[in-house]
Amino acid sequence: MPHAILLAHCPDQPGLVRALASFISENRGNIIQFDQHVDSLEGEFFMRAEWDLEKFVIPRPEIPIFIRALAEPRKMTWSLHFTDERHRLALFVSKDSHCLYDLLSRHESGELDADIPLVVSNHEILRSAAERFGIPFHRMEVTKENKASAEAQQRALMKEHGVDTIVLARYMQVLSDNFACDWANRIINIHHSFLPAFPGAKPYHNAHARGVKIIGSTSHYVTGDLDEGPIIEQDVIRVTHNHTVADLIRQGRDLEKIVLSRAVNWHVQRRVMSFRNRTVIFT
Amino acid sequence: MPHAILLAHCPDQPGLVRALASFISENRGNIIQFDQHVDSLEGEFFMRAEWDLEKFVIPRPEIPIFIRALAEPRKMTWSLHFTDERHRLALFVSKDSHCLYDLLSRHESGELDADIPLVVSNHEILRSAAERFGIPFHRMEVTKENKASAEAQQRALMKEHGVDTIVLARYMQVLSDNFACDWANRIINIHHSFLPAFPGAKPYHNAHARGVKIIGSTSHYVTGDLDEGPIIEQDVIRVTHNHTVADLIRQGRDLEKIVLSRAVNWHVQRRVMSFRNRTVIFT
Amino acid sequence: MPHAILLAHCPDQPGLVRALASFISENRGNIIQFDQHVDSLEGEFFMRAEWDLEKFVIPRPEIPIFIRALAEPRKMTWSLHFTDERHRLALFVSKDSHCLYDLLSRHESGELDADIPLVVSNHEILRSAAERFGIPFHRMEVTKENKASAEAQQRALMKEHGVDTIVLARYMQVLSDNFACDWANRIINIHHSFLPAFPGAKPYHNAHARGVKIIGSTSHYVTGDLDEGPIIEQDVIRVTHNHTVADLIRQGRDLEKIVLSRAVNWHVQRRVMSFRNRTVIFT
Amino acid sequence: MPHAILLAHCPDQPGLVRALASFISENRGNIIQFDQHVDSLEGEFFMRAEWDLEKFVIPRPEIPIFIRALAEPRKMTWSLHFTDERHRLALFVSKDSHCLYDLLSRHESGELDADIPLVVSNHEILRSAAERFGIPFHRMEVTKENKASAEAQQRALMKEHGVDTIVLARYMQVLSDNFACDWANRIINIHHSFLPAFPGAKPYHNAHARGVKIIGSTSHYVTGDLDEGPIIEQDVIRVTHNHTVADLIRQGRDLEKIVLSRAVNWHVQRRVMSFRNRTVIFT
Repeated sequence: MPHAILLAHCPDQPGLVRALASFISENRGNIIQFDQHVDSLEGEFFMRAEWDLEKFVIPRPEIPIFIRALAEPRKMTWSLHFTDERHRLALFVSKDSHCLYDLLSRHESGELDADIPLVVSNHEILRSAAERFGIPFHRMEVTKENKASAEAQQRALMKEHGVDTIVLARYMQVLSDNFACDWANRIINIHHSFLPAFPGAKPYHNAHARGVKIIGSTSHYVTGDLDEGPIIEQDVIRVTHNHTVADLIRQGRDLEKIVLSRAVNWHVQRRVMSFRNRTVIFT
Repeated sequence: MPHAILLAHCPDQPGLVRALASFISENRGNIIQFDQHVDSLEGEFFMRAEWDLEKFVIPRPEIPIFIRALAEPRKMTWSLHFTDERHRLALFVSKDSHCLYDLLSRHESGELDADIPLVVSNHEILRSAAERFGIPFHRMEVTKENKASAEAQQRALMKEHGVDTIVLARYMQVLSDNFACDWANRIINIHHSFLPAFPGAKPYHNAHARGVKIIGSTSHYVTGDLDEGPIIEQDVIRVTHNHTVADLIRQGRDLEKIVLSRAVNWHVQRRVMSFRNRTVIFT
Repeated sequence: MPHAILLAHCPDQPGLVRALASFISENRGNIIQFDQHVDSLEGEFFMRAEWDLEKFVIPRPEIPIFIRALAEPRKMTWSLHFTDERHRLALFVSKDSHCLYDLLSRHESGELDADIPLVVSNHEILRSAAERFGIPFHRMEVTKENKASAEAQQRALMKEHGVDTIVLARYMQVLSDNFACDWANRIINIHHSFLPAFPGAKPYHNAHARGVKIIGSTSHYVTGDLDEGPIIEQDVIRVTHNHTVADLIRQGRDLEKIVLSRAVNWHVQRRVMSFRNRTVIFT
Repeated sequence: MPHAILLAHCPDQPGLVRALASFISENRGNIIQFDQHVDSLEGEFFMRAEWDLEKFVIPRPEIPIFIRALAEPRKMTWSLHFTDERHRLALFVSKDSHCLYDLLSRHESGELDADIPLVVSNHEILRSAAERFGIPFHRMEVTKENKASAEAQQRALMKEHGVDTIVLARYMQVLSDNFACDWANRIINIHHSFLPAFPGAKPYHNAHARGVKIIGSTSHYVTGDLDEGPIIEQDVIRVTHNHTVADLIRQGRDLEKIVLSRAVNWHVQRRVMSFRNRTVIFT
């Protein structure tokens, strides 16, 4: 039996928890999880509710009507999801295989509960990696000159395959502002530094040059501003003077794949809400 | 204006969030934080609600009456607290000063929001540490022979000073089962290992002998079973073959004081619920 | 140009660093890395030296003769390796794919600098995973009854494929004492707990029941005593009351694969020395 | 019996380990620890040797003569220390007490093996904290106008008290370039962020605004460039959307005191070498 998941946020005001909990309970939905957060600085209320539909008296197609009635007077932004609607992910990659293999093996074992209809790459090199796992691989060269048309093709592919979210799994091309904007909060990137330290190119080289004692990795939603989007997850690992740049790159890979997969899993499970460049993560 | 804090748990059943949220909201309490957890294995529901009393229409002394009415039909165990009622802590110590100084300096700076009416010790050595911070120090020698009478004195002291919670800040005596039982969930210990690894005496020696690559520290409620009580907080630090037992002891001290102070702070802020040897921490 | 790597340990005595450094330098070997450790409790000296053979005046086949001359009067235990001799690993697996995929993808990308001539399993389920990466897969059912003959077959396979080290990548069978003994310090296991906490079966269930706030993973050499062998690497991750056993299992997988791959990499790079149930790791 | 400690670095060249190890061993010094590191990017060799003077045949005052003879032909920069020469630390503080109390209590327990002849502050507020531990407290107001003369007074105080190293234990004044330059690698600061992220003022506010999931703390040598000096130690702690700026400040204090004390201890034990804005830490 599927669950419903409601994500909602609105200006903080009295009675919000009661209103939402009452709506679910009075209609005989059994609350599985109910998380709420008030950002007192922004005066914004955030909520994630997950409930069992088994005895829920409102028919599934009509639930949005009721929620709209709750949401409008409260100026609430919301989205409704059902656990039997599988998320569809496109993986964008370049040459590095570690994040791709990590996501594909999680997908195969069922840990990543989403569909992966395709892998897109600007290089040929990872074709066999994708195809080995039975995922169609689309090579699409991207140059300064053809960038606009390549993106048009990418958008067409996304549409054709019904993609919900794009995962940049070490995709080394910068997307256009327009693309990022149209897909706001639906493109997840992994950046190989502890942002906001070392944005842009060659973060491990820069970390080594600065002599940091800890390196990190950051997964974030992509916005028009490079490496400036809302952070979903970060993690770090200790390094020493003994580590060369090559060591940092190698150790960083473990961080990158773990951090990206956590972010993708939370996103797919509808646990992430984004608001003014910050995220609320209901885990 | 003080807040009210309600901690409650009961068998999971439909409508719990609604019932509690409605009680607060309908009486014009503004919910500051509302956390809930369902342990699906145990079938138990846990909740912590904190609300502003400013416009709350039920007079403070009558709140328990209303909560009792909510709780009884639901077989709910609950406790009600107010943020203007300062927790009273007794610190028990032996010879090591690091946890004592850490708690006293947090207390002085206001970070540890509780009263510390006294320090109790089976040794004289930390008297000046306590008195330096203006806290009365009670020396109470404990031997095999006088243990029962010493505990009777300790209990009398606790009563006299209106102590709510005892913090064993590296107190190297084992309390009797009776004492532990009477003060269930009100005695917080710090054990210098990553429990359940290395319970009992000399955990750093044992960790060194076993060749672990990480050492830890555990804060837990004291029960009759040594080092077996509900865990509140743990943390760890990486070590290498290069570390001697003395190094582990020295590094462990940093863990001990941080872990103990987190546990004490959460306890004082009524963020800890204990149930069948496990804790729920609403942070 | 390959490097030579010398691992050595002996009772601590004056002049050891000088003797070994002089041997290398005076024969025009350029020292790349020279690590030394004295375990003052055991009175044992440990050393790892890596040097460039380019201008080294002693011919490669004769180096052992010289080292023997240095080692004997000092009661030194030693082994000599060359970086152009690739380590040969057999991976033993059962049903869980995460460690297998992780090692195979590191192998493919060149990060794991070793040969993997075969995968051995007591189940059929991971055949396609291995074969997808072009690694021969040997199914070998193991039951109480056939255990002795199965091990004989496994030993024969190891011999046939010139295997140096066996990696138990979530292999859910216990090896016999004899096997473990004959392959001392050449079988690497990953155990899904923070040893010595939760040895044996179902560690995540036990961790959940105990209510720990941190879970861990341990890679160690296999000995006759289950989960008691020398620890190579451990790591941990924070959990909360909110995590079910299934959550611990899922989160633990990330630990298992990272910890195992670190241990295997260090072992392959001849960075691990084992002595009386503890390891020295020269990273 | 005291040990000698030699710190040295020079351009990498064959025979360095041998030369230094031979010098110690041939003069009957027993090597306690011998650490070496080659920065292959910079082509620089670093070494720390600690040896027992008991049977060392060179008289203590003459050791430098011999080392000079070794160092000069190799263009070696070096310093020689003896473990019975206690380091003298001046603590500079402003209003926050946590780092001060932490250092004073480590000093009292003997864990911080150094003398603390004085505490200097631009505020009166921590006088009682220092005096409670028997350490003289010097108030020295610093304003834009009197900065030069205040620094002159501070330098005079340092001289008068034979101070080796200044610890900025949350001292909220920026030292002049001149001061920083004259005391290069002898002033240790604690900055309350994970540098290079969030340099300058209000790092916790900036970390909160950026929505990071991990905050950090950095201890570094002070140079003329604010928060740009060589990093000695860093550590981090995980935070969530739930943490307010006040929470970050409170949690950050634990990081600050731990990170600063580690850095100070390593410095005092002569384990830190600084080279072109990076440090080598021999732990």
